[in-house]
Amino acid sequence: MSIAKTAIIHAGVKLGKNVVIEDYCIIGVPPRGHKDGELETIIGDDSVIRSHTVIYAGNKIGDKFQTGNKANIRELNEIGNNVSIGTLSVIEHHVKIEDNVRIHTQVFIPEFSTLMKDSWVGPNVVFTNAPYPKSKNVKDDLVGPTLHENCIVGANSTLLPGVHIGKDSIVGAGSVVTKDVLAGDVVAGNPAKFIKKKTELPY
Amino acid sequence: MSIAKTAIIHAGVKLGKNVVIEDYCIIGVPPRGHKDGELETIIGDDSVIRSHTVIYAGNKIGDKFQTGNKANIRELNEIGNNVSIGTLSVIEHHVKIEDNVRIHTQVFIPEFSTLMKDSWVGPNVVFTNAPYPKSKNVKDDLVGPTLHENCIVGANSTLLPGVHIGKDSIVGAGSVVTKDVLAGDVVAGNPAKFIKKKTELPY
Amino acid sequence: MSIAKTAIIHAGVKLGKNVVIEDYCIIGVPPRGHKDGELETIIGDDSVIRSHTVIYAGNKIGDKFQTGNKANIRELNEIGNNVSIGTLSVIEHHVKIEDNVRIHTQVFIPEFSTLMKDSWVGPNVVFTNAPYPKSKNVKDDLVGPTLHENCIVGANSTLLPGVHIGKDSIVGAGSVVTKDVLAGDVVAGNPAKFIKKKTELPY
Repeated sequence: MSIAKTAIIHAGVKLGKNVVIEDYCIIGVPPRGHKDGELETIIGDDSVIRSHTVIYAGNKIGDKFQTGNKANIRELNEIGNNVSIGTLSVIEHHVKIEDNVRIHTQVFIPEFSTLMKDSWVGPNVVFTNAPYPKSKNVKDDLVGPTLHENCIVGANSTLLPGVHIGKDSIVGAGSVVTKDVLAGDVVAGNPAKFIKKKTELPY
Repeated sequence: MSIAKTAIIHAGVKLGKNVVIEDYCIIGVPPRGHKDGELETIIGDDSVIRSHTVIYAGNKIGDKFQTGNKANIRELNEIGNNVSIGTLSVIEHHVKIEDNVRIHTQVFIPEFSTLMKDSWVGPNVVFTNAPYPKSKNVKDDLVGPTLHENCIVGANSTLLPGVHIGKDSIVGAGSVVTKDVLAGDVVAGNPAKFIKKKTELPY
Repeated sequence: MSIAKTAIIHAGVKLGKNVVIEDYCIIGVPPRGHKDGELETIIGDDSVIRSHTVIYAGNKIGDKFQTGNKANIRELNEIGNNVSIGTLSVIEHHVKIEDNVRIHTQVFIPEFSTLMKDSWVGPNVVFTNAPYPKSKNVKDDLVGPTLHENCIVGANSTLLPGVHIGKDSIVGAGSVVTKDVLAGDVVAGNPAKFIKKKTELPY
């Protein structure tokens, strides 16, 4: 265990074995309407939380978790084992992230998104969840994207609310995904269109 | 009033009633060429400045101001009441933001931009203001975008220098806006094109 | 020389004359597999490292270096004189940046990228270096983009792995660059296409 002197650990935080928390991190921040320590925050064994990262309370995080510097994770997420959240990436609340997911740098993942196991999200990718921002029922209408197993979302892509990115599929860099991507498809463009099957790629 | 012990407050900062400033924030940083305290920095009543946020000197900010964690606000902006600047968003200098504007996460707003009241800016949106970067007269030619009242700019969109986004209009996620958007229009694409009138939307 | 009390300076850091390091910075962080001080970190004369910036060990950085707030620079980069890395921008490792390069805000530059002298990178630009993320040989296949001298990459553009952006060329804002850009060309769009020669621009 290695907790930097300048790291701030709130009440209710339960750290596994051999966890490293670097300088200027804040862990277990109570979200609005909750008292300090009211929500339990669990971070699994062998995790490394890099400097200036903020993690709110109520997260259940598995073993071998890694953050880059300055990551930001809101409350009440479920995060599996061996997950990595890159430098300056932002995870909002009520997100489900399964085992072995890798989220790269400067990514944005809003509430009610689901990332199934082994999926990979490139730098600066933006998920969205509000079909009608500023509408009267916006909070009831929120629906995040779903990444199915082992898919790849290329750098700086934008996913519209509620789209499903199929198992083993690939979204090319810079795409704007406005509808579901079928399992095993490669798509690209704005709006993203079918390019080929992943099985046609040379690797 | 609640000022974290690790928050650094420079001279010349005037905080309203019930302001919260969280850990590792720095407020009232003197910009280049100015001494500490030379420019007044005003933050209104009931504001919450979340951890690791940096606010330079010379800002006039209204009541009920909120920042997400790690926001960054340069000098000499005018910001109205009930404005929210999201996590990791960056506001440069000489920006005007009117009442009830919401700027989401990881947004970039350069100098000389104007955001009129009730407008909404999605995550990772990028405004630009330099028609000819690196040109001899670049500093004289800077012209930021203008958001008119109650417009919506979808996630990861890019606004070219000087464009006007009309009142009640909507820019779809992932758009690149190269010319003005008329009031009440919905546009999308790269470059962004007219899709329909907002009145045709089902909400 | 002005080193803030809250700045953390690791062993092996050699600072030039008149260097400023602001609050909550961490300089000389040993990367995985290295001990504190094992790699030398050099920052040249008259450099300013703004608050909350993290610089890993093993960087060789020239004179008059500037970072914005909260920049993040990994290990083992070579950075020339008079280089600026903007607020919240991320430089990974093994990147080569020549003299007078300006990297704006919230940019992502991955390993094995090259930025030749006088090039300019706009806000939220994303470079990529993995042709086949998650493939078996991904680490061997990494190839970053190359910016040739004096080129301009507009805001929120995406550069695919290994592309060359020619000398004096311009990539328009919001572009997705999938193939090389010839010297002196102006390109834009998704995918980026030839628009005109830079010599046809009115400046």
